[in-house]
Amino acid sequence: MERVKKIRAGDVRTASRLIRNIEDNIPEARPVIKSIFHHTGNAHIVGITGSPGAGKSTLVDGLIEWYRRKNKTVGVLAVDPTSPFTGGAILGDRIRMQRHAEDSAVFVRSLATRSALGGLSKAVGDAIHVLDAMGKELIMVETVGAGQQEVQVMYYTHTVVLVLVPGMGDEIQALKAGIMEIADIYVINKADRAGTNKLQRELMAMIDMSPMIRNQWRPPILTVDNAFEPVAFYKGIDELSTTIIKHYQHLIENNMISDRLRRRSLTELNDALQSCILDPIFDKLTIDGEMDQMIEKLLKKETDPFTLAEGVASKYVKVTSD
Amino acid sequence: MERVKKIRAGDVRTASRLIRNIEDNIPEARPVIKSIFHHTGNAHIVGITGSPGAGKSTLVDGLIEWYRRKNKTVGVLAVDPTSPFTGGAILGDRIRMQRHAEDSAVFVRSLATRSALGGLSKAVGDAIHVLDAMGKELIMVETVGAGQQEVQVMYYTHTVVLVLVPGMGDEIQALKAGIMEIADIYVINKADRAGTNKLQRELMAMIDMSPMIRNQWRPPILTVDNAFEPVAFYKGIDELSTTIIKHYQHLIENNMISDRLRRRSLTELNDALQSCILDPIFDKLTIDGEMDQMIEKLLKKETDPFTLAEGVASKYVKVTSD
Repeated sequence: MERVKKIRAGDVRTASRLIRNIEDNIPEARPVIKSIFHHTGNAHIVGITGSPGAGKSTLVDGLIEWYRRKNKTVGVLAVDPTSPFTGGAILGDRIRMQRHAEDSAVFVRSLATRSALGGLSKAVGDAIHVLDAMGKELIMVETVGAGQQEVQVMYYTHTVVLVLVPGMGDEIQALKAGIMEIADIYVINKADRAGTNKLQRELMAMIDMSPMIRNQWRPPILTVDNAFEPVAFYKGIDELSTTIIKHYQHLIENNMISDRLRRRSLTELNDALQSCILDPIFDKLTIDGEMDQMIEKLLKKETDPFTLAEGVASKYVKVTSD
Repeated sequence: MERVKKIRAGDVRTASRLIRNIEDNIPEARPVIKSIFHHTGNAHIVGITGSPGAGKSTLVDGLIEWYRRKNKTVGVLAVDPTSPFTGGAILGDRIRMQRHAEDSAVFVRSLATRSALGGLSKAVGDAIHVLDAMGKELIMVETVGAGQQEVQVMYYTHTVVLVLVPGMGDEIQALKAGIMEIADIYVINKADRAGTNKLQRELMAMIDMSPMIRNQWRPPILTVDNAFEPVAFYKGIDELSTTIIKHYQHLIENNMISDRLRRRSLTELNDALQSCILDPIFDKLTIDGEMDQMIEKLLKKETDPFTLAEGVASKYVKVTSD
């Protein structure tokens, strides 16, 4: 397939167009996604997540530079909450990352969240495969760690980096609750601020109590300080990059990588089942006008949602008692 | 059904147990949910959402008091991100609300987010029906407005109140992007802080530009200041409560309520189809060991997720070309 060849050759235009089609859930993308799957599995996939305003983009930018100095190719997927209100600010971050735009070994794309349930996770999963097939050695997926789907996105990665800042409200930290449990590396950014020691102690206590120290990997807590001190910042980035690589090696050497890959495959299968089973039934119900009829019945309280859904299931799903 | 009777009589223990079963996705809950559906539709359902730390719980507490003074019964569902880390802080908020605990006309429950995709939205939808069947006249659903599912939750409500605070980072405001577009009332809380005028201007500009002024409702921007000034606070709450009621009347008088109810029914049907179609197929694949076999194939890259999902679809979904 011509498009697959182009993507494998790292063609930016073809890859960008495919990712856009994935975002927009255009059916024509599917055969290409199917074909590239066999050419994936070589990249180290790293999730970078954390509080809003934690400085994730700056860290990602620093990591890109570090990996480029080591001559590694890099792909970045920045998952954006679609914002009509402050889109500019976020776009600013992306533009900052675009200082690598002239470097053909770096490929940065923003993915906007889709309104459909499950759409975000699915789009990210497929887009990672595109970057992987392009031959990027390190793929970073940056998300704001809030909401269930955003946590789900981390299931596509090998290494989860959670970025925190001291002194943010308790509720903000709680937002990332689901992610707290799956982080492999904690980074305290803006570590010149008051509250760093307190946050460090809290994290340590949490790690001690939790079942996270499973499989001999105790999530390390790193500090980074990017306040006008490039030298201190790059010292922090150096330690972070090294730790990210160490985590990946640890996964491989201790045969733990298979658990991650299994979790990822399950998520992908989950997404694909949604696309191949539920989506077509929805479409059919909508086109047939049956959806409208059902909603009218609900509005008149003639019946309830479960009774209707059971009816749809008995019509469209085969009863297999084998 | 005995349980339905008890819930309709406002029995707190029966309602609490049912909500817990809904949270845990226990199948025995379904017949009860089906039966109470016919006894719902009387409550005014109000979503209270916004930035972390915006003071939503304090506002909800003030609204409870206002409605109780008008002799209205009140139900509150507080959607919590499950937090092993800062659970205490959030629990503190709930406990504060529990000063109404001795008032039998007030029913407050926290709903924890479930890890299953779509689980949160479904649980909230069903739990609202429980409070509605209990006869609560005002039902408030409080969520942190971040993440797609949290936005989806607002589709269950008639009136969406978005709580903002001045001076929070752009990215934090952007979190609520999806919600920005569906808010009916904006509240600037902690309006004594610097940046209130700026935020007001930005909101006004956004409202002017957007298609939100549809159907003759221009979302008002209210300010509340709860900094140690009970009188000023309750003045703000009074205005907010009155505006919430005005919005509901506007929906009814202008025949706009049907759009909201339709959106809600569609979401409920969506949730029920997921439960009745996809969940049983998942369970069957898992029990049969087919899921494991498929994952092994993916790990060996013998095939791709879409090809597998298409296979499952052709096996379990009836081909209907009528």
